[in-house]
Amino acid sequence: MKSYKELGREELLSLKESLDRQYGEAKAKGLKLDMSRGKASVSQLNMEMDFLDVVNSDTEIKTETGVDCRNYGLLDGIPEAKRLLADMIGVSEDMIIVFGNSSLNIMYDAVARCMLFGVLGSTPWCRLDKVKFLCPVPGYDRHFAITEQFGIEMINIPMTETGPDMDLVEKYVSEDPAVKGIWCVPKYSNPQGYTYSDETVRRFAALKPAAEDFRIFWDNAYAVHDLYEDERDELLEIFAECEKAGNEDLVYEFCSTSKITFPGSGISAIAASRANLESIKSIMTIQTIGPDKMNQLRHVKYFKNIDGMKTHMKKHAQIIRPKFEAVLEVLERELGGLGIGTWTRPRGGYFISFESLEGCAKAIVQKCKEAGVVMTGAGATYPYKADPKDSNIRIAPTFPSEEELSVAADLFVLCVKLASVEKLLEG
Amino acid sequence: MKSYKELGREELLSLKESLDRQYGEAKAKGLKLDMSRGKASVSQLNMEMDFLDVVNSDTEIKTETGVDCRNYGLLDGIPEAKRLLADMIGVSEDMIIVFGNSSLNIMYDAVARCMLFGVLGSTPWCRLDKVKFLCPVPGYDRHFAITEQFGIEMINIPMTETGPDMDLVEKYVSEDPAVKGIWCVPKYSNPQGYTYSDETVRRFAALKPAAEDFRIFWDNAYAVHDLYEDERDELLEIFAECEKAGNEDLVYEFCSTSKITFPGSGISAIAASRANLESIKSIMTIQTIGPDKMNQLRHVKYFKNIDGMKTHMKKHAQIIRPKFEAVLEVLERELGGLGIGTWTRPRGGYFISFESLEGCAKAIVQKCKEAGVVMTGAGATYPYKADPKDSNIRIAPTFPSEEELSVAADLFVLCVKLASVEKLLEG
Repeated sequence: MKSYKELGREELLSLKESLDRQYGEAKAKGLKLDMSRGKASVSQLNMEMDFLDVVNSDTEIKTETGVDCRNYGLLDGIPEAKRLLADMIGVSEDMIIVFGNSSLNIMYDAVARCMLFGVLGSTPWCRLDKVKFLCPVPGYDRHFAITEQFGIEMINIPMTETGPDMDLVEKYVSEDPAVKGIWCVPKYSNPQGYTYSDETVRRFAALKPAAEDFRIFWDNAYAVHDLYEDERDELLEIFAECEKAGNEDLVYEFCSTSKITFPGSGISAIAASRANLESIKSIMTIQTIGPDKMNQLRHVKYFKNIDGMKTHMKKHAQIIRPKFEAVLEVLERELGGLGIGTWTRPRGGYFISFESLEGCAKAIVQKCKEAGVVMTGAGATYPYKADPKDSNIRIAPTFPSEEELSVAADLFVLCVKLASVEKLLEG
Repeated sequence: MKSYKELGREELLSLKESLDRQYGEAKAKGLKLDMSRGKASVSQLNMEMDFLDVVNSDTEIKTETGVDCRNYGLLDGIPEAKRLLADMIGVSEDMIIVFGNSSLNIMYDAVARCMLFGVLGSTPWCRLDKVKFLCPVPGYDRHFAITEQFGIEMINIPMTETGPDMDLVEKYVSEDPAVKGIWCVPKYSNPQGYTYSDETVRRFAALKPAAEDFRIFWDNAYAVHDLYEDERDELLEIFAECEKAGNEDLVYEFCSTSKITFPGSGISAIAASRANLESIKSIMTIQTIGPDKMNQLRHVKYFKNIDGMKTHMKKHAQIIRPKFEAVLEVLERELGGLGIGTWTRPRGGYFISFESLEGCAKAIVQKCKEAGVVMTGAGATYPYKADPKDSNIRIAPTFPSEEELSVAADLFVLCVKLASVEKLLEG
């Protein structure tokens, strides 16, 4: 394949003519496909319908400690569920509070608590003139939406294959007391699928923040979401490193079963140091009497333990892996060598990150949309939806069927080619 | 029966001696009973175990509009659940957002949103020097705990059999722009079991607040919790009255199924005007992807509709009613005519409110505790746990078995007598 950049104007014009024709044909098909969100597919959900049977009218509804799961009580979760989620992220079960179906909600509430009540006795953030968060980019749009809603200034930190640019992170965190937090998806990052290296985790754990109320928001959303059995990323457990560095209170870690059991009906958890947990619970105890313990019991009965969960995740991988591979195959076959895009090859998680030529992402997503394929909005992976190079696109291959996916991927590469040619003709 | 106040010193001393002996005997029994919280009993929970069977692996998991309840989506709830909860409180289903298992959590978040973002464009309350709430007393301790946590000043408003003292409410609300809210349990109030009269509801709906961001927090927790079929309180629906008064945005109403199905695993809702709902949703959409729709579906499948729910509530009433009657019988038999206490006779809800002689409530609760019966803490029914007369005690008869309850009630009246005699001997 010849790189598009080596093509002359006439070659580009002729190529554009051919691509325009193909695009016209694609549009005429009247597609209606969605590669925008990290949603589980119907096949995944159908595969786990027996999840709905493990709790029924014959079920022993008491916890191992004898608490009736049907009634009020147990603010921080049933012991069995604590253990399951603790094992999922490799921490001790006494570091866990179990919540309802949304880890996003826990993260939001964690920031809201800092805004309203501060952190372990610090000034509430809502009383400060300026609060800043570091945002590894590209990153997760819903993280950025939270900090934006609270009026927190967001600072872009470039991502690398080993995690965020740690020189920059250390500089900001150690020098600026207005920097109060950083959003991290440390394993199979959203959208690249990168896993932070051991060195990155150690540097995080050893941060010396200028602000006493600085916290790392460690969203371990894809802890057990491996695509390959033999080739999986290992994330160093951060609390053990924090302890070595004398930084026990530095991290709030989040996890959930949202892409393990039904996305809308999972359970979630925060993991934190004793001091952080006590502070959180002292505020939470006014907010709620506690989360749905029957659903915690349902998860425990379904998986029994972490091994059961891991076996279950292999079934998900069997469904998802071919979809990732189908998209990657199309990208490689159609765009390989053309010099108009690069992409990641994740070993887990829910996304592939695509980098187009500068100034093409919006055009590509728009063209896809006009031909009936919805992608995550261009820019969504950056704070304020502002991708400075207009080049990043998040691909979410899990929701469509394999057949739909191959149609959608074909359209996507066509739109990449077309937008790239148009860009090169401008230049 | 001769009133204690008519007894001379010698009679009181002799009575005390006899009561002391009885109390010593009661203590020796080593009781361990709990009349402190409004918890459903094991009989109630066992009666509804089939709730766990209505959703299983054979269930049609789509909403009537075709949405897959297992996956992400539907921030404001499934249409069927909106309708069920709307019918429960007599409003239109488009006024509803369905949430997770805790209406307390919705109320907390509602106040938190006002603190952080204001109300329909007003200044966030956290930026104001002073925010005040009116608190009908005695009232619900968890309401007062929320406003206390946010540093909101609480003002006591005396309750009457027809609702809060509305002259006082109107005066505060119309004159003081720092008054931003009032906590109400309008039907079968906690702890008295009073239901606001039509006139009270109309006066609420017609309030002319000095503060544009004043809201009524209308916690309709006991909307369908009648004890008697033939003798039930009817609460006037407030939104219709608000509309007549041109006050559509004045009310946030809350409800839940927490004492209809399993207390820890219910669904809950906020009802509000279109403008309020839109504002709430615009903030919520950043906080969560949405509540557990499978549990909403479970409720809808279990009850089918509001008639199914009402039939179900009759079964609860059959279990609870004898408990209320047992306590009331003991109170009447043992304390009637003694002039040392008054109490309410609710037709629904979860509590009986007891008024002792001034300065006796703490002593009574303490004596009960020492003999092994836990009551709601004296003072808990007042903001800042400060009952100015130290006279109110909330009795929660639902959790113990009937047998336990009769033992607990016997002890309670004994402690009332003893504390009263001691008080009279002091005077």
